Amino acid sequence: MKIGIIGLGLIGGSLGLALKKSGFASKIIGYDISEDHMDEAKKLNIVDCNASDMVSLIKSSDLIILAVPVQYIETLLPDILDSIENQIVTDVGSTKLTIVNKVKEHPKRSNFVASHPMAGTEFSGPQAALPDLFKGKVCVICDREESNANAVQTVEAMYTSIGMNIVNYRSDDHDVHTAYVSHISHISSFALALTVLEKEKNSNRIFELASGGFSSTVRLAKSNPETWIPIFELNRDNVLDVLDEHINTISQFRTLLIKKDFKKFYQLMEKANNIQKILK
Amino acid sequence: MKIGIIGLGLIGGSLGLALKKSGFASKIIGYDISEDHMDEAKKLNIVDCNASDMVSLIKSSDLIILAVPVQYIETLLPDILDSIENQIVTDVGSTKLTIVNKVKEHPKRSNFVASHPMAGTEFSGPQAALPDLFKGKVCVICDREESNANAVQTVEAMYTSIGMNIVNYRSDDHDVHTAYVSHISHISSFALALTVLEKEKNSNRIFELASGGFSSTVRLAKSNPETWIPIFELNRDNVLDVLDEHINTISQFRTLLIKKDFKKFYQLMEKANNIQKILK
Repeated sequence: MKIGIIGLGLIGGSLGLALKKSGFASKIIGYDISEDHMDEAKKLNIVDCNASDMVSLIKSSDLIILAVPVQYIETLLPDILDSIENQIVTDVGSTKLTIVNKVKEHPKRSNFVASHPMAGTEFSGPQAALPDLFKGKVCVICDREESNANAVQTVEAMYTSIGMNIVNYRSDDHDVHTAYVSHISHISSFALALTVLEKEKNSNRIFELASGGFSSTVRLAKSNPETWIPIFELNRDNVLDVLDEHINTISQFRTLLIKKDFKKFYQLMEKANNIQKILK
Repeated sequence: MKIGIIGLGLIGGSLGLALKKSGFASKIIGYDISEDHMDEAKKLNIVDCNASDMVSLIKSSDLIILAVPVQYIETLLPDILDSIENQIVTDVGSTKLTIVNKVKEHPKRSNFVASHPMAGTEFSGPQAALPDLFKGKVCVICDREESNANAVQTVEAMYTSIGMNIVNYRSDDHDVHTAYVSHISHISSFALALTVLEKEKNSNRIFELASGGFSSTVRLAKSNPETWIPIFELNRDNVLDVLDEHINTISQFRTLLIKKDFKKFYQLMEKANNIQKILK
């Protein structure tokens, strides 16, 4: 199957590598607004060739993957659906509701499968792409009843071929649950980085002491704001909801420290330990 | 050199494995308040033999490592210094000031080297011990001028033999800097786990969406409260200091989301990105 990937960053690039490796793609055609990304993707064998524009990418592809930041998925998706004939279109956006609402009434809506492969690293760009990024991870397919059976089946087969496990959510649920689990983790990590940079002015000390747990907890704070600002923007209400809870929880730890109530502090830590039963 | 390790958990156990592997130890003698830990340590080849009590461990060792939770280091250290002749004693405690103050006037103070190897995982007990846990990590030696030259040299040689890099802090500085970098990371991670457990009642959703950054950010929330409560207790004032800053920072993110000030939000994320220059 000929696959066109629009957006050759970490996710688009990794999909290119993974789909060639799995054999699902007979050919990968790339397009990116950045010429440098296209050159890099060609050099790294992420794509077999690059298209000169989106229209020609669409013409030469059976399946089109939109792997650009979420606000551009929103903008580009209607145009892409305008241009396709029988091709299938999917996206990789970290938010879903505003995207699907944008094409709700589009006559080609059923050619589109809203998806979110839950994988990533804190790095970005084609040079960060990894062929095994998706292996063993979960891909969320949203509102599957809105897509035609062939489109869903093809997109699922694509993600399955690169080792992903499929789960099905509604778009609005997806945005709530990703805010509650993934988006809050990013804000927490960014806040931790800023806290430590503010308090610990001696960067040697940070470097020396980072192995005491700081470096893994702060990993996400290396993530690209270009990717994440639009996610927080589009999913603001759900993020605010879980952020309020997070501030309450941290403030509770503060109160217990002030009151020296280490018994209650211990109980909260034990409760938090339950997370290991879920994550295994 | 014959090394006695008191406390055969993650850190004590890993030291046993590492010091045998490096050849620095000709013999490892173990002691733990838990019989199970001692049996396990023997079975896992962490120790060559176990002592029946601390006095006999001290008698048969040239160097004694105290690898118990910090509040027990405080309690045991004076007794151990009472019992030694020319042996060297060191500890691995995550806080330092109250420990060194406890033995400030002890006639054998100079036989003691206060140290903190900055390494660990979220797991505990001898079965979690890893021979390469310390490789490439930093070991903080505190108040080196309070220890005799031979003791410092021996302890440094021990940590160097297992691949650690030595840095020198004052005990009070150590406690400030570890609060600012390591202890706050643990509180942040525990709070994140509680937040997500509270908001996301469907544990399947947590499991499915964890690869979106949650699982690494929450890793430390699996840590043992038995180890960490005494650390927060002994280093409470410094932890509160950085915790206040952390609450301010997260609250600032909240305010910016409420005001939809994504420009300022972006600038803060960019500032947080600087952490990657320090951590490399």
